[in-house]
Amino acid sequence: MKPRVLLLMGDTAGVGPELCAMVANDLPSTAEGVQVILAGDERVFEEARAIVGNKVKPPTISSVERAADSEASFLFWDVRSEDVALIPRGEVSAAAGREVLHLLTAAIELAKAGEIDGFVFAPFNKESMHLAGSSHYSELELFKEHFDRPDITGEFNVLDGLWISRVTSHIPVAKIVQTLSVERIAKTISLLGEAQERAGVTPSLAVAALNPHAGEHGMFGDEEGGLIEPAIASVAGERPGWRLDGPIPADTLFPRVLKGGYTGVVGMYHDQLQIATKLIGLERGVTFHPGMKVPIATAAHGTAFDIQGTGKANHQALKNALSIVSEMAASGSDGGSV
Amino acid sequence: MKPRVLLLMGDTAGVGPELCAMVANDLPSTAEGVQVILAGDERVFEEARAIVGNKVKPPTISSVERAADSEASFLFWDVRSEDVALIPRGEVSAAAGREVLHLLTAAIELAKAGEIDGFVFAPFNKESMHLAGSSHYSELELFKEHFDRPDITGEFNVLDGLWISRVTSHIPVAKIVQTLSVERIAKTISLLGEAQERAGVTPSLAVAALNPHAGEHGMFGDEEGGLIEPAIASVAGERPGWRLDGPIPADTLFPRVLKGGYTGVVGMYHDQLQIATKLIGLERGVTFHPGMKVPIATAAHGTAFDIQGTGKANHQALKNALSIVSEMAASGSDGGSV
Repeated sequence: MKPRVLLLMGDTAGVGPELCAMVANDLPSTAEGVQVILAGDERVFEEARAIVGNKVKPPTISSVERAADSEASFLFWDVRSEDVALIPRGEVSAAAGREVLHLLTAAIELAKAGEIDGFVFAPFNKESMHLAGSSHYSELELFKEHFDRPDITGEFNVLDGLWISRVTSHIPVAKIVQTLSVERIAKTISLLGEAQERAGVTPSLAVAALNPHAGEHGMFGDEEGGLIEPAIASVAGERPGWRLDGPIPADTLFPRVLKGGYTGVVGMYHDQLQIATKLIGLERGVTFHPGMKVPIATAAHGTAFDIQGTGKANHQALKNALSIVSEMAASGSDGGSV
Repeated sequence: MKPRVLLLMGDTAGVGPELCAMVANDLPSTAEGVQVILAGDERVFEEARAIVGNKVKPPTISSVERAADSEASFLFWDVRSEDVALIPRGEVSAAAGREVLHLLTAAIELAKAGEIDGFVFAPFNKESMHLAGSSHYSELELFKEHFDRPDITGEFNVLDGLWISRVTSHIPVAKIVQTLSVERIAKTISLLGEAQERAGVTPSLAVAALNPHAGEHGMFGDEEGGLIEPAIASVAGERPGWRLDGPIPADTLFPRVLKGGYTGVVGMYHDQLQIATKLIGLERGVTFHPGMKVPIATAAHGTAFDIQGTGKANHQALKNALSIVSEMAASGSDGGSV
């Protein structure tokens, strides 16, 4: 029996269903060695197929447990929670949020029960999720709670074979410094390196400084010497085989990394990394959630409400997310359950 | 009599003299309508000419006042302060710093006396300047004091016709929020727009948010609504002809700006802008100092000690700096003395 990967259609109001219809056109080469199960409301998928001119019509199953009965490498699981005709397209709504929460929760339960070996979700809107009553800021908090991993500091971004992680994420700039600690920085570096080792890569990581010019010898900030250097030293002591460079001034970090030789980047705050990664290639980026029971990934971009229904969205990122998770599921790796 | 622009050789220990020798090869097309006076120690210039294979040998003058006697569009002013043979190449030293301070101070005095109409300096090392006894963190503080402009918030970066300014600069990340204010943000926006108007450009400015996702409706930080929006509104009220967009999340700012339509960008802190501008094209960038008595500019890059003496440095940024200052000097503009 092949490992199973679930692909969730994401927000009905956004481009997720269209992207899934495009990805379906590219199967099975995108996800070799696994059985892909696309999950969502069949009526929404039919709409999306018409928009993008999808010719692939996978067999429909009524529950994931029934997938074992099929030899097909691509199946459709018809999940109905909302009256999808009532979900307004191209905008935020509680109904769209409920549909997404229903899908995510189902995927989490199936992963915990050992029924699936990884999952990928198309983009959804956080505001809709909040309107639907979710108390979690984002899917990260949802996964941390359900997989009981409160220690996980964040997700990875994967772009062209480069793995990117940050020590702090969705917090105000005013709280960055108080949130950083030697322990937290060391943990983020370790988690990234360990995930790479499990994926067969020897970590060679570039660690960002916090302050401009890395504080210029303490002239504007001393977190480099006080926090980041001790964290790097602590990880280096435990992992003599890893290459760890830093703290590197944030504005020279990516020009250096793009010259090659690094497998990963660790940054101190959200925009320090996001500014660069979005400039380098937003539409191709993948967000990967390490440390959960199974590999989980999504496209790094959003729901693109403005082009919903036009078939103009680029499905490369979602396709890359499916490739990464499928490869890990096929090789039996969870991508970093440390 | 043509307007005069001084070109300072910068740090003897770095690539500045070589870059000046390369720029000299590209004269006079780089600086039409002005008389360019290269200033520095003649022995260092001879060294640099030999390194880059410069065939241009401008007439030497002993003081800038003598330039009026010459019709030449390119002159060399031999300025000697240090025993240049004793300045170690490729590293930090007090002697290199003294030489730079001597040159910068001379240029400032000439500008104040009305003897020159603008100046450009090749890169120098701040640490050498500090070792030489300067109490100023950088040239910005030196210019603010000598031209009596304590209100100037910073310099501009100019890259491919896009003018970039930031509200805070060389301060720790921990102090960004307390340094921002409605008044300071509005002042930075105004200064950039006014400089553009004087350069004949109608301002169309993109203003960055501070927090990730622009604070996501106050979920992580409220400086967008509390400081940035009121600052934009206040400038918009006084300048109805300007286009002002923002606050725009920092990670989507440059992808939007690169699509075109903007003449300038205002950011809240150093790395928010520097990460993007260095990725887009470090070697071409120019740093421009607005609000002083004459237009002043330099290359955005540093002294590149590691390649000093090799002739491998790229002189495009210094050449662009000279073009911008020459154009302003020729048109009688100071580029933003508000």
